Amino acid sequence: MTVHEMTLTRLLDAPADTLFRCWTTPELMRQWFAPKPYTTPVAEVDLRPGGASKVVMKSPEGQEIPCPGQYLEVVPGRKIVFTDAFTGDWMPNVGAPFMVATVTFEPEGDKTRYTATVRHWSEADRKTHEEMGFHPGWGLCAEQLEALAKTL
Amino acid sequence: MTVHEMTLTRLLDAPADTLFRCWTTPELMRQWFAPKPYTTPVAEVDLRPGGASKVVMKSPEGQEIPCPGQYLEVVPGRKIVFTDAFTGDWMPNVGAPFMVATVTFEPEGDKTRYTATVRHWSEADRKTHEEMGFHPGWGLCAEQLEALAKTL
Repeated sequence: MTVHEMTLTRLLDAPADTLFRCWTTPELMRQWFAPKPYTTPVAEVDLRPGGASKVVMKSPEGQEIPCPGQYLEVVPGRKIVFTDAFTGDWMPNVGAPFMVATVTFEPEGDKTRYTATVRHWSEADRKTHEEMGFHPGWGLCAEQLEALAKTL
Repeated sequence: MTVHEMTLTRLLDAPADTLFRCWTTPELMRQWFAPKPYTTPVAEVDLRPGGASKVVMKSPEGQEIPCPGQYLEVVPGRKIVFTDAFTGDWMPNVGAPFMVATVTFEPEGDKTRYTATVRHWSEADRKTHEEMGFHPGWGLCAEQLEALAKTL
């Protein structure tokens, strides 16, 4: 089967549970979720399979970028799967869905193997995501995530 | 929010648990799942959120119609949500997804209120589904389902 995916992985200097908390707690998400100088003014989290995730990012010029989505699978402290295909309680997000993201947090000694995999419904979407800057963008966010987690 | 949905509901003369069993047990699914004279030669069920559902229907002329999909939510005896958007473990089903189906079984006295709702990512897909015969097709299947459940 063809899988239109990209993966980013980093060994982060923070505990898995703390990183998971940064990924799933609104007031923490607002501090690291968008690659700077973008910001995250809105983060709403209903952390359960079928629960809505409402994130709004904001560009330095003030343009708001809504990112509605839904959690598909949640393993506390270890794994989150989410997508823009639904907006909560399995309601289709009108228009073609773009991606499914799986984020895992695996303890490695006193650090954490952080892995984010994005999968798409088409190769065109995967390529668009790559050109939007998946690798540098998620890489920068991983650094912001680690920096925040080290303060907690 | 615009929701591109259609609903079919019937009061069926069988217990909710039995109808649920007909919907989720391969050897029972093969007996009623496709509207006759279509048949269901293949039904594979991994009944859990993220579990694959592989059904193949067959036309009277012998053409096989694969229907790969995945369960999203399962409430034993009462509710099933599934979609063709994934093929198992949240892998995108390459190509645009077509629908999300929610099937509920609510006891009403000694009968069951059976309700199937299909939602689509676009109005075009909803219309296509209607023209494919959603209402007569799912209606006929509901009769087949009830007839089988009454023998169990």
